[in-house]
Amino acid sequence: MKRPRIYLAGPEVFLADPIEAGRRKRALCEAAGLEGVYPLDNSLELFRLTKPEQAKLISQSNEGLMRSCEAAIANLTPFRGVSGDAGTAYEVGFMRALGRPVLGYTNTPLTLLARSLVYRTGVRLPIDADAPDVAIEDFDLAENLMIEIAIEASGGRLVRTQVAAGTEMTDLTGFKLCLEEARRVLGVAG
Amino acid sequence: MKRPRIYLAGPEVFLADPIEAGRRKRALCEAAGLEGVYPLDNSLELFRLTKPEQAKLISQSNEGLMRSCEAAIANLTPFRGVSGDAGTAYEVGFMRALGRPVLGYTNTPLTLLARSLVYRTGVRLPIDADAPDVAIEDFDLAENLMIEIAIEASGGRLVRTQVAAGTEMTDLTGFKLCLEEARRVLGVAG
Repeated sequence: MKRPRIYLAGPEVFLADPIEAGRRKRALCEAAGLEGVYPLDNSLELFRLTKPEQAKLISQSNEGLMRSCEAAIANLTPFRGVSGDAGTAYEVGFMRALGRPVLGYTNTPLTLLARSLVYRTGVRLPIDADAPDVAIEDFDLAENLMIEIAIEASGGRLVRTQVAAGTEMTDLTGFKLCLEEARRVLGVAG
Repeated sequence: MKRPRIYLAGPEVFLADPIEAGRRKRALCEAAGLEGVYPLDNSLELFRLTKPEQAKLISQSNEGLMRSCEAAIANLTPFRGVSGDAGTAYEVGFMRALGRPVLGYTNTPLTLLARSLVYRTGVRLPIDADAPDVAIEDFDLAENLMIEIAIEASGGRLVRTQVAAGTEMTDLTGFKLCLEEARRVLGVAG
């Protein structure tokens, strides 16, 4: 009998041994009568590719895997900040838009409010799942590859702008460039 | 002539004056022949609702607004961590799964790699768009409401587990509970 396929979203792909992390989750899925689908499955043999080619292949592979799954389980444990991994957040949204069930867990009992208040004190969060042996994406990108490549794949680009200190949240130079991009992508005349 | 509707994703909803932030973006959209759709538009009159009711209403409203838009422009400026706002990342994934073009901008020229390396030093990022007057979500949730409410709306729940220090990334207690949830939601027998 065909077991339902579950997309295993989470920052485990950055662990020192991502293959082992995936193996553990897949084994638990199998014991539960489910087929665990781990993002890295489709992204082997990358070593002859350039960084942009790798990023694009991983993004496309993962989106294909998500479409092939009936549901997702997301590890939303805080990752390098107050919230879960940005790529995982992207994937939760992706599966939700497809109407697929999304389950999730976080390995901290602290609310988002509590974590944000700690962060604001200037102290690094005690729980953010970062460690020296946790990989950092290195694709010369401005954001998690799932996000930036999706923007490119949809016809746009992620506009990077340097703004005056203190105006990071309000400067609209990049926004105006995006409006031009939007007009081009949507074929708005004039 | 009907102007294309553009969903305005970003953490501006948390600014001290979110209405004004939306007004500025909508005005720029209009000048570009586009209709800017700001998340807050549909979430007024919340004050008589409980926190869970508010979170659910905002999530449902924003997902409805996204489905009504032809494209999105996302502000991916780092927000309380190395990446953009988690809710914005969710929305980029959501629009991408619907096949809608997503444009994006970030108000820092630093790559994700550079920001992550700074973060790892234990120093708070100089650019993370947080400030004392930027609102913090307060819905007793474990994660950005767009993510947690989506999980609940799809039939699951976001499982919170307290784990031993240092095992935040590897403990699978919450994952096992999600597997039970997945079996239930997908109707796997036995």
